[in-house]
Amino acid sequence: MSEFKIGIVSISDRASGGVYKDEGIPALKEWLAKVVTSPALHFEERLIPDEKPVIESTLVELVDMRGCHLVLTTGGTGPAPRDVTPEATLAVADKEMPGFGEQMRAVSLKYVPTAILSRQVAVIRKQALIINLPGQPKAIKETLDGVFAAVPYCIDLVGGPYIETNEALVRAFRPKSAIRKKP
Amino acid sequence: MSEFKIGIVSISDRASGGVYKDEGIPALKEWLAKVVTSPALHFEERLIPDEKPVIESTLVELVDMRGCHLVLTTGGTGPAPRDVTPEATLAVADKEMPGFGEQMRAVSLKYVPTAILSRQVAVIRKQALIINLPGQPKAIKETLDGVFAAVPYCIDLVGGPYIETNEALVRAFRPKSAIRKKP
Amino acid sequence: MSEFKIGIVSISDRASGGVYKDEGIPALKEWLAKVVTSPALHFEERLIPDEKPVIESTLVELVDMRGCHLVLTTGGTGPAPRDVTPEATLAVADKEMPGFGEQMRAVSLKYVPTAILSRQVAVIRKQALIINLPGQPKAIKETLDGVFAAVPYCIDLVGGPYIETNEALVRAFRPKSAIRKKP
Repeated sequence: MSEFKIGIVSISDRASGGVYKDEGIPALKEWLAKVVTSPALHFEERLIPDEKPVIESTLVELVDMRGCHLVLTTGGTGPAPRDVTPEATLAVADKEMPGFGEQMRAVSLKYVPTAILSRQVAVIRKQALIINLPGQPKAIKETLDGVFAAVPYCIDLVGGPYIETNEALVRAFRPKSAIRKKP
Repeated sequence: MSEFKIGIVSISDRASGGVYKDEGIPALKEWLAKVVTSPALHFEERLIPDEKPVIESTLVELVDMRGCHLVLTTGGTGPAPRDVTPEATLAVADKEMPGFGEQMRAVSLKYVPTAILSRQVAVIRKQALIINLPGQPKAIKETLDGVFAAVPYCIDLVGGPYIETNEALVRAFRPKSAIRKKP
Repeated sequence: MSEFKIGIVSISDRASGGVYKDEGIPALKEWLAKVVTSPALHFEERLIPDEKPVIESTLVELVDMRGCHLVLTTGGTGPAPRDVTPEATLAVADKEMPGFGEQMRAVSLKYVPTAILSRQVAVIRKQALIINLPGQPKAIKETLDGVFAAVPYCIDLVGGPYIETNEALVRAFRPKSAIRKKP
């Protein structure tokens, strides 16, 4: 596979309604462009409101129609009535991946005690890993720094491309038997 | 809002049956009276048996009829057959808040390795945060000390009163934009 | 009770199909034989493929027919399409025990960042505690070392035998009121 297709979904009533400028999509693209060295990145970007049916259909489209192997969402994971990103993500899941949510909260807890209010989840749908991230660019970076080392091997296991990273930033971990030597 | 309505629910067959004296309600009230400085506390106390339908209807009454913004339960979170507090809490939930259970277990684990047997959860129902706490007064204090810093901002987000704490005991955390200046 | 009945279930398409030798069952038996000093261990061993209905019926048979008080599974907890052990375990559960999965991932995370990919759960079914463990013998040992201190008291609470351990290896923890003096 010569491409790594990544869905980037910013979920926010106000940003999608033009009330303020979305900062989630640029923050995610910038982080990924720095960290992932191969294969070439192909982004599918979506900016949508906090509507459960819209979030669900967007995730399904990105995985089933666009063939993404990774989908990152930002926003909508708090306790407020409009925050429904985790519920929408679980609704389209084949498998839950509880370790991501646990570890993202544990990482954020080093910065703010309100990290426990984040309800973010990660799931597998078909050939894709879907991860909910926080809404703030600073928190996006902190949580990706904390979990991305496990993402390339996870994507191997669901049949995706072999992802390599800039090891000065994130050292992807694979068991020895899963490491491919360069030709 | 000039009042902070808090439901305090002690769940125990033996205490509700008069076999021994309930220690959960006094422990919870004492802790809250020390830590919360405003607004004025109004407690709704209930002492009930480990019966799932009774726990559910009590939680619904406290949130829907009494208008509580916080409901704390104590007891019934272990692995024994009569321990059904988490199941009853999830049954009346609009949203799960997994970070509370994770953090309460992580905090208790510093004291006892059997902390992992506690199945406590937290959820949002309408305008209220409902948190399961352990049964022992010592463990109640330890877990509240470990998570309460996130409670005031959570209650802001579900539309409750602006809660202030004695910062020498618990320093409530809010993002800068959510902090209200005193007049 | 003069016996501690333990179900040991290795879940692997390849090992059960004879493609390679199962290493999970011997690793689990060796660890338990070293750590548990009383009562006498009785093992019920099963080597089965990654088929959800087979895993479910095996767990039900071990708990309901064989009377096991502890069932340990190994394998099938990752994100790959054939990994369905957690789903099968949850399908036969009376109660979820989220603290085990959290703690096992936290322990494994000290060794490898891909620990967060493990979806292992623990549950109560009737008189039995069922725990999913990783597939690799080294990881089996690490996670059992990390959670077993809580297992004897958990088995007390579901009505099983009073388990004692070699305290040099694992110090079982019970509240004072639950400790039985030797006659």
